[in-house]
Amino acid sequence: MNISHIEHIGIAVNNLDEAIPYYEKTLGLKCYKVEEVSDKKVKTAFFMVGQTKIELLESTDPEGPIGKFLEKKGQGVHHLAFAVDNVNKSLNELDEKGVRLIDKTARKGAEGLSIGFLHPKSTMGVLTEICGKE
Amino acid sequence: MNISHIEHIGIAVNNLDEAIPYYEKTLGLKCYKVEEVSDKKVKTAFFMVGQTKIELLESTDPEGPIGKFLEKKGQGVHHLAFAVDNVNKSLNELDEKGVRLIDKTARKGAEGLSIGFLHPKSTMGVLTEICGKE
Repeated sequence: MNISHIEHIGIAVNNLDEAIPYYEKTLGLKCYKVEEVSDKKVKTAFFMVGQTKIELLESTDPEGPIGKFLEKKGQGVHHLAFAVDNVNKSLNELDEKGVRLIDKTARKGAEGLSIGFLHPKSTMGVLTEICGKE
Repeated sequence: MNISHIEHIGIAVNNLDEAIPYYEKTLGLKCYKVEEVSDKKVKTAFFMVGQTKIELLESTDPEGPIGKFLEKKGQGVHHLAFAVDNVNKSLNELDEKGVRLIDKTARKGAEGLSIGFLHPKSTMGVLTEICGKE
């Protein structure tokens, strides 16, 4: 598996209307997209910081994954996503190495990328995503 | 304030002896430095991932900042650090914008960089560091 860079950092926030102005006006970053992903029960906002995107995640349903995370842990970093060449190949390699996987095979994520999640029980507590064009 | 990239991601782990092999053998990253920072009561290990460092943080004292974090939240992302041109100028700018600061002026951090921390109460729950050469 060849990780080239950190593709994005997912951050759970209570409210995009409060969080976007903080990232834009206070930190000086530019929000280039806001998108609702209804099957994930989440509204997202994206910022580019060098090679890495910041993906803010607001829950649209307390029973969704971000709703539950916010209830349990409060606002903060939700997951890290590493860019790899080939997601399915990487998932197979990780499986062989004994990593517990949330996704056994790649699925389609934001911006048409292939993605797969590893379980935080296998990743020292960091919910980890791998993503790539293939 | 001009943020160029994510300088590093600080991740609290229970044990570097368990975490370093995960990052090296499982994820295929290379640990380029292990360092104890005794005044912070922490042992650190660094990995380069594209533009961004991963800084693993093992506590050497349960009363230190990482010891308390691990006790309260368990393993996971502890802080994000943004690279800026001038840390003191950026801290002044953030102060004027009403951001609560942990460091009012820059201090010396790892690798000779100037650093300053913002309070997570002002940053939507993410403990945030800014760092730079000046």
